[in-house]
Amino acid sequence: MRNLTMMTDLYELTMMYGYFKEGMHKKKAVFDVFFRNQVGGSSYAVMAGLEQLIDYINDLHFTEDDLDYLRALKLFDEEFLDYLRHFRFAGEIYAMPEGTIVFPGEPLVRVKGGIAEAQLIETAMLNIINHQTLIATKASRICYAAGKGPVMEFGLRRAQGPDAGIYGARAAIIGGCSSTSNVLTTKMFGGRPAGTHAHSWIMSFDTEIEAFRAYANVFPDACMLLVDTYDVLNSGMPNAIKVFDELREKGHKPVGIRIDSGDLAYLSKKARQMLDEAGYEDAIICASGDLDENLILALKLQDAKIDTYGIGTKLITSEGHSALGGVYKLSAMENDKGEIVPKIKISENIWKITNPGYKKVVRLYSRYENKALADLIMLDDETIDDTKELEIFSPTETWKRMTLTNFYAKELLVPVFVDGEQVYESPSLAEIKKNAEKELGTLWDEYKRFTNPHIYKVDLSQKLYDIKNELLMQSK
Amino acid sequence: MRNLTMMTDLYELTMMYGYFKEGMHKKKAVFDVFFRNQVGGSSYAVMAGLEQLIDYINDLHFTEDDLDYLRALKLFDEEFLDYLRHFRFAGEIYAMPEGTIVFPGEPLVRVKGGIAEAQLIETAMLNIINHQTLIATKASRICYAAGKGPVMEFGLRRAQGPDAGIYGARAAIIGGCSSTSNVLTTKMFGGRPAGTHAHSWIMSFDTEIEAFRAYANVFPDACMLLVDTYDVLNSGMPNAIKVFDELREKGHKPVGIRIDSGDLAYLSKKARQMLDEAGYEDAIICASGDLDENLILALKLQDAKIDTYGIGTKLITSEGHSALGGVYKLSAMENDKGEIVPKIKISENIWKITNPGYKKVVRLYSRYENKALADLIMLDDETIDDTKELEIFSPTETWKRMTLTNFYAKELLVPVFVDGEQVYESPSLAEIKKNAEKELGTLWDEYKRFTNPHIYKVDLSQKLYDIKNELLMQSK
Repeated sequence: MRNLTMMTDLYELTMMYGYFKEGMHKKKAVFDVFFRNQVGGSSYAVMAGLEQLIDYINDLHFTEDDLDYLRALKLFDEEFLDYLRHFRFAGEIYAMPEGTIVFPGEPLVRVKGGIAEAQLIETAMLNIINHQTLIATKASRICYAAGKGPVMEFGLRRAQGPDAGIYGARAAIIGGCSSTSNVLTTKMFGGRPAGTHAHSWIMSFDTEIEAFRAYANVFPDACMLLVDTYDVLNSGMPNAIKVFDELREKGHKPVGIRIDSGDLAYLSKKARQMLDEAGYEDAIICASGDLDENLILALKLQDAKIDTYGIGTKLITSEGHSALGGVYKLSAMENDKGEIVPKIKISENIWKITNPGYKKVVRLYSRYENKALADLIMLDDETIDDTKELEIFSPTETWKRMTLTNFYAKELLVPVFVDGEQVYESPSLAEIKKNAEKELGTLWDEYKRFTNPHIYKVDLSQKLYDIKNELLMQSK
Repeated sequence: MRNLTMMTDLYELTMMYGYFKEGMHKKKAVFDVFFRNQVGGSSYAVMAGLEQLIDYINDLHFTEDDLDYLRALKLFDEEFLDYLRHFRFAGEIYAMPEGTIVFPGEPLVRVKGGIAEAQLIETAMLNIINHQTLIATKASRICYAAGKGPVMEFGLRRAQGPDAGIYGARAAIIGGCSSTSNVLTTKMFGGRPAGTHAHSWIMSFDTEIEAFRAYANVFPDACMLLVDTYDVLNSGMPNAIKVFDELREKGHKPVGIRIDSGDLAYLSKKARQMLDEAGYEDAIICASGDLDENLILALKLQDAKIDTYGIGTKLITSEGHSALGGVYKLSAMENDKGEIVPKIKISENIWKITNPGYKKVVRLYSRYENKALADLIMLDDETIDDTKELEIFSPTETWKRMTLTNFYAKELLVPVFVDGEQVYESPSLAEIKKNAEKELGTLWDEYKRFTNPHIYKVDLSQKLYDIKNELLMQSK
């Protein structure tokens, strides 16, 4: 990853300068990263991007070249530029591990540090977490629709720039995709890339069957043929079967066919029939071409015979809801006596009022079915005794109460940086993917459905609720 | 820019290998980059990304590390890996300069080279051109809605990864934005970054007025205050005016205020009134917060008093139409006799049938008003005599004909690489932006409106039309 220190909104630097000139820059502050709204109707999101956030923090430093550029803006004095010259992140970061199932309103990342250093990292951190969490979530939805059918990520050419392709593919795998076509992503993070050939391969030969034969000749044991260049049922399928027969005679087993356009429901059923009749019951049918979770569901409803899906544009750009909308809000600040006091941002909109204080997130699971019951946001020094029953309540409709018994509690935020030192090792992409699968398994299907999913409870502890109310009262 | 050689779909490599094993890899092929659909209802798009495409091509090479990774996939033989070891792009690329106004169906980039090298560059080229053209187009729309009000790009934190932020901001400036908050983008491409402070600045002080005073103290001559942290009209505005008065007494001129939430129409009108009454008629009102072209139009309709706009998420992700959908299609191929023959991709959908041959694009302007009249796609060796009248016709509704007189013709594709050597120097971002402005000025407003814009004519020359029809007939 390149050095992204200068990839920041200017206002992070002007605020840093302001804090520095006011002598406040070392005052401790606490910030939370969270998102407010469901992503495209999904009740949950899949946390992703922490590994790249760690890389960013470790590499955070200004070069002389950066300082020369900043000097030329004529906004900052030499004393401040010298402070930047020696700047390293020395604060604390807690975060949810990648693959964690997360919900609106709860801190995904918690930063505590001098207000200048905590402020600087806002933009890049949000950029990284917003992007990867968005794509992992979209992938999770698409894979849920696909069910047992593996989903391959094919969107690099439509991604919003190189990183969107590279890290988007990474996030898609966290969210459940079985593979990606992006060779750089698999080189960087492991796994095998997927892919065979394009329409241009077929068109570069005089006839379709010559193109198929040539491909079969080069990849006799990985022969997947794209059958929709000219006419799927009258040309593509008969030619593919002819070439499969030739392969079979030579002792090879053909892999299958891909359809990239047209009426995928109808064509896949006809293609299945043709393959079966020719004795290729094991041959796979892969469908691609502007698919998303809704189209996959529609195809299933029509009993389409599709074994694997190749998903491009609508996954890699999360079409229709192209941003997660994660924010970074001040939740506590050191006062003149050196105490960390909670801070709140008021809004007309109850959802936009922030949760104050130095907090943690606890997930409560039923011991019976090992399913997630609710999340509790609480102050960091609070504890839960899971040997006793626990009453929780909605922070907006406080009469809605639930008593939990036979549950266990898990803290979701883990230490990543302490005093600027990295204390967390990012697991491999394969391990993260497995973690996400396991976490998703603790969520009832009611939270996963596409239309009106059940809303997962994210409640506040009584103590946090009281502090929040007190601050709201004071603000009047 | 990092080396993006491995940032490719696997199938580009498997096809290259296929061509190599079949002894076809040096056969000349011609590919066109074009998009088929309007972006979010816009009749035009703004070409962007060429500079990064040039960087990518110049840097195209496989490292030993890349080759080791590819070897481990067990798909390719040593002979091919050795070919990759010495691989450099040696072909020809013509492209439209950045800032050119472009339309569906016409080649933005034309590649001619050995089919293996021309195939390899598909994915990264589409990724770069699709992304930047998308964002430049969205920016152009937003700036058209904003009219004289400068538009600042503020979306880095919501962009789909670092590159989407960095190059998206570059594209936004090409499309018409006056500045960006992204410091890395202005460092890389010139210009001054924009930005002041966030809600966290206000919240980190005990009171709003203390926060305003501190900011004014540090930036007395660049004092732009964010007034919506607590209550715009009852707290933010009166406090801002108090601090402006203090600045004025010391001989400074306050810049203005920013409103980031709430009813921007109502609040901006009230804020304007308060500023004017206090003698700050020159103070600017900046609005931000989930704006796009439609909201800007709505604000104008309500006579909102907004001088500048800060646009984030909806610009930097092109929300609602998050991909351009550009494709890369084979249009001609060397036959066994060494002749370059046109190729066509058939489709049920008339719009999806490609234009065959080695082509160019000519824009026809009226000499009277210097406005663009139509584009003609023609074979590369055709010429236009603009001293005579010219009849053009719709390629799908051939009875629709128009005779042009008193026009001049401009070829839109310029040579960028010839025999692998770069022959085009990318202008500065400021020059590209100026070029885009000039080009947009040659387009009648009818093509720019938001609802049902007039559809710009992209016709085929008679010769190209005839070749296309002949190929279509042959395919039956």
